[in-house]
Amino acid sequence: MKDIVDINCDMGEAFGRWRIGDTQDSLLISHISSANIATGFHAGDPNLMDETVALAAAHGVGVGAHPGYNDLQGFGRRKILGNSKELVNDIIYQVGALREFARRHSVPVQHVKPHGALYMEMAVNSDFAQIFVQYLRTVSPNAFVFCMGGSATHRAALDAGQPVVREFYADRDYDDSGSIVFTREAGRPDPMVLAQKVLRACQEGKVRTVTGNDIDIEFESICFHSDTLGALDIVLSMRELLIGAGIRIAPVSQILGQ
Amino acid sequence: MKDIVDINCDMGEAFGRWRIGDTQDSLLISHISSANIATGFHAGDPNLMDETVALAAAHGVGVGAHPGYNDLQGFGRRKILGNSKELVNDIIYQVGALREFARRHSVPVQHVKPHGALYMEMAVNSDFAQIFVQYLRTVSPNAFVFCMGGSATHRAALDAGQPVVREFYADRDYDDSGSIVFTREAGRPDPMVLAQKVLRACQEGKVRTVTGNDIDIEFESICFHSDTLGALDIVLSMRELLIGAGIRIAPVSQILGQ
Amino acid sequence: MKDIVDINCDMGEAFGRWRIGDTQDSLLISHISSANIATGFHAGDPNLMDETVALAAAHGVGVGAHPGYNDLQGFGRRKILGNSKELVNDIIYQVGALREFARRHSVPVQHVKPHGALYMEMAVNSDFAQIFVQYLRTVSPNAFVFCMGGSATHRAALDAGQPVVREFYADRDYDDSGSIVFTREAGRPDPMVLAQKVLRACQEGKVRTVTGNDIDIEFESICFHSDTLGALDIVLSMRELLIGAGIRIAPVSQILGQ
Amino acid sequence: MKDIVDINCDMGEAFGRWRIGDTQDSLLISHISSANIATGFHAGDPNLMDETVALAAAHGVGVGAHPGYNDLQGFGRRKILGNSKELVNDIIYQVGALREFARRHSVPVQHVKPHGALYMEMAVNSDFAQIFVQYLRTVSPNAFVFCMGGSATHRAALDAGQPVVREFYADRDYDDSGSIVFTREAGRPDPMVLAQKVLRACQEGKVRTVTGNDIDIEFESICFHSDTLGALDIVLSMRELLIGAGIRIAPVSQILGQ
Repeated sequence: MKDIVDINCDMGEAFGRWRIGDTQDSLLISHISSANIATGFHAGDPNLMDETVALAAAHGVGVGAHPGYNDLQGFGRRKILGNSKELVNDIIYQVGALREFARRHSVPVQHVKPHGALYMEMAVNSDFAQIFVQYLRTVSPNAFVFCMGGSATHRAALDAGQPVVREFYADRDYDDSGSIVFTREAGRPDPMVLAQKVLRACQEGKVRTVTGNDIDIEFESICFHSDTLGALDIVLSMRELLIGAGIRIAPVSQILGQ
Repeated sequence: MKDIVDINCDMGEAFGRWRIGDTQDSLLISHISSANIATGFHAGDPNLMDETVALAAAHGVGVGAHPGYNDLQGFGRRKILGNSKELVNDIIYQVGALREFARRHSVPVQHVKPHGALYMEMAVNSDFAQIFVQYLRTVSPNAFVFCMGGSATHRAALDAGQPVVREFYADRDYDDSGSIVFTREAGRPDPMVLAQKVLRACQEGKVRTVTGNDIDIEFESICFHSDTLGALDIVLSMRELLIGAGIRIAPVSQILGQ
Repeated sequence: MKDIVDINCDMGEAFGRWRIGDTQDSLLISHISSANIATGFHAGDPNLMDETVALAAAHGVGVGAHPGYNDLQGFGRRKILGNSKELVNDIIYQVGALREFARRHSVPVQHVKPHGALYMEMAVNSDFAQIFVQYLRTVSPNAFVFCMGGSATHRAALDAGQPVVREFYADRDYDDSGSIVFTREAGRPDPMVLAQKVLRACQEGKVRTVTGNDIDIEFESICFHSDTLGALDIVLSMRELLIGAGIRIAPVSQILGQ
Repeated sequence: MKDIVDINCDMGEAFGRWRIGDTQDSLLISHISSANIATGFHAGDPNLMDETVALAAAHGVGVGAHPGYNDLQGFGRRKILGNSKELVNDIIYQVGALREFARRHSVPVQHVKPHGALYMEMAVNSDFAQIFVQYLRTVSPNAFVFCMGGSATHRAALDAGQPVVREFYADRDYDDSGSIVFTREAGRPDPMVLAQKVLRACQEGKVRTVTGNDIDIEFESICFHSDTLGALDIVLSMRELLIGAGIRIAPVSQILGQ
């Protein structure tokens, strides 16, 4: 039974004049507590990164780096072959780029959360997860790693003593193993159904899977995606239910200390 | 009459399996004192940036960021329209990426030197130069700006109190205004001719222009390009003449303090 | 006083999951007669090109290639330095790509219209225009060149005997020289105002410039942009007024023969 | 026992000022009979495609399209997720681009050979191979498909009646199944060893595998790679041995008719 939780959302997932989805970061930002800011490989560009960091800083929202595969065409949702060292170098590049904008706006990089297929790859690739965590321990020992509970990423962070946050995925389905069912297109879900799912997870620590079973779920942050259709309604419904149930929303750095 | 000078060179200007020019960084690195490391837009990739920072760190060579226009096809030697704010955001992105690798290898970013057409644009665009210097003052107040003496970049750094280094271009020709004559292809120059030109500049503070006149030249660092044909012979000849004349070679951070 | 006119519009200006503007090609396609299909450099991707050619073919809309600068970030609206030969090679590449999809769907490439800054560059660069027209004469002698009346493109096509079409720009402003005022962002114009402007141009051959003068204007095709806000309302208003005034709408290949 | 064979080689695998490997197309071109010309996704650019088509045409070498994954960083040697329809659209785009340059230089596209990981993917993906061959039957029914004997590509071409050519890989190793052992880096092989392997394959129809067994091999074209170190020596050695043994070298369109 939680009394405080983080809500994280992908932000800055546009570039140039290009857009995905139907909502705008400026509307979402006041309803979330942690922002995963796209770092230019799957989405984002330097101008938008600068704006989005400024936006998050102005709203007291935790700034996170959201590195992805170098694949605008596939929006970072296609796995691309690379050894662990190469994949971590791609992440270092992107996190560094975001950190420079964060320094410009006098805010720390609160967390790092890989995007899409890169997130899923790290979840199952221990070697990749360990090299990634080693890099963070060296360069940014206070940054939280956002991940799935029980993933290779989670274990690597725990083993190394790097701060770590487990996510609950409001707009994704779970299978019986506790993994999310990865989809390239998510459709337009019912905001209230998602909000009820989230509230139950916060209060009971349980979620219904795609096969109809209940499984236990542990997490510190709730994730939803700004490119999910109806994202604004989703976060408004979640907040209403959570706050109505006495659950406070705050960045993980305030919940867990940094 | 100098008794100490820096030698800087572009490094890491490859990506994936792609190469330009006929020399290799691993051969050049022990003969220079400051490395301008390509940051992925005109050349360079995360893997090569990691290697090149490690290489420079191992040789005690000053690590610099070498951001360019986002143009692999044109090797950053074509001007691309952008307002000053956008151009600086491109630089911030790239410098941040390099700084993260530098942190990983426990070395500071000693300097920032824009590449090719971006360097030339800043030299004549005061607005661009000033926004760039403001960013550096905020995020990296000890980093040296590398530039042409008398350029807009030089004036902006002096006005703001940002550490600044003027370059002498070993493998580029000068016109009577003291500007370099920008070329897309540089040919294969005679190493000893270039070395004599450099030695004279260090000892007499003078250089012969393309029209045959002598002009005064002030600088703290000697620049040559790793993609100039015969780059290794050029640097070996320069070092031989300079050291023979009692001139020591060291990174600008040792010459000027940082 | 026209009794028949073409309406052309840019199509397929998305890529992957990325979108620009608020309208969809599938809504616009039944109201236009010629489609300028983005060819992957400033917008478009192979999947979308295939779909858009199929869409145009299904509606009897003339298929045109719409090549641009290789600049997704700037949506092809930034000039990039290149000599005339290089710029024409970029166009050949893109036109060929589109022609292959057109062959797959058994329709000819009716016309070629460069996009954005590349269109503006050709309008003022005789050398570029002539090399472009020479290429078309060799490879595609029946393809129409779309251009501004009086531009270098227009003159080059006339001189070489290549079929040519002059455009009237429904959603762009004119200056007193008859050139369009190029803008990076077009705002949301009033559809009925644009439609009245178009009808007058068809009936009287005149347009009011940004300085309030009337100038003569000759054209065979009306252009509007799918990324102009309210594009669907614009074309619906135009069609209503034109058809109400007895002016028929048809592809240029039907108006002028091919 | 052959008396005539084709030699094919990848060509135009550079872009802008970027190079891979140590040999130049202008040296290789007079020693091969079919050129697989890179089409801009894994290597190549419009300027180089124009030059390389002109070079092949001038030497009477068969012009082929060599489409790859859209991955300059990985040189097309990394598999990227995509459904069969998307992969074929990528190929159509690239083949069309090359065909336009071929039309400009008044030569046909003799063949299509996918590059690297895309070639390997088609070899094992029947769905992809069939959609690819359907496209060629529609647009280019006389173009040869280059492939491995026994691959999905081979079967799809045979089933559809599309002209097809099997390759023997001079600079790649075979396993006992007759597949080539795919490598990201090939090293510098001994030219005479490769030439002996090729001559034996032509005369006896046999090749030694990596496990030391002899297997039967059928082919109409010998493939080697211009980025293999020592490529020029390889082709010179092959030609010397083949011609010395009375085997003539000619484009497949002359061997098999087109």
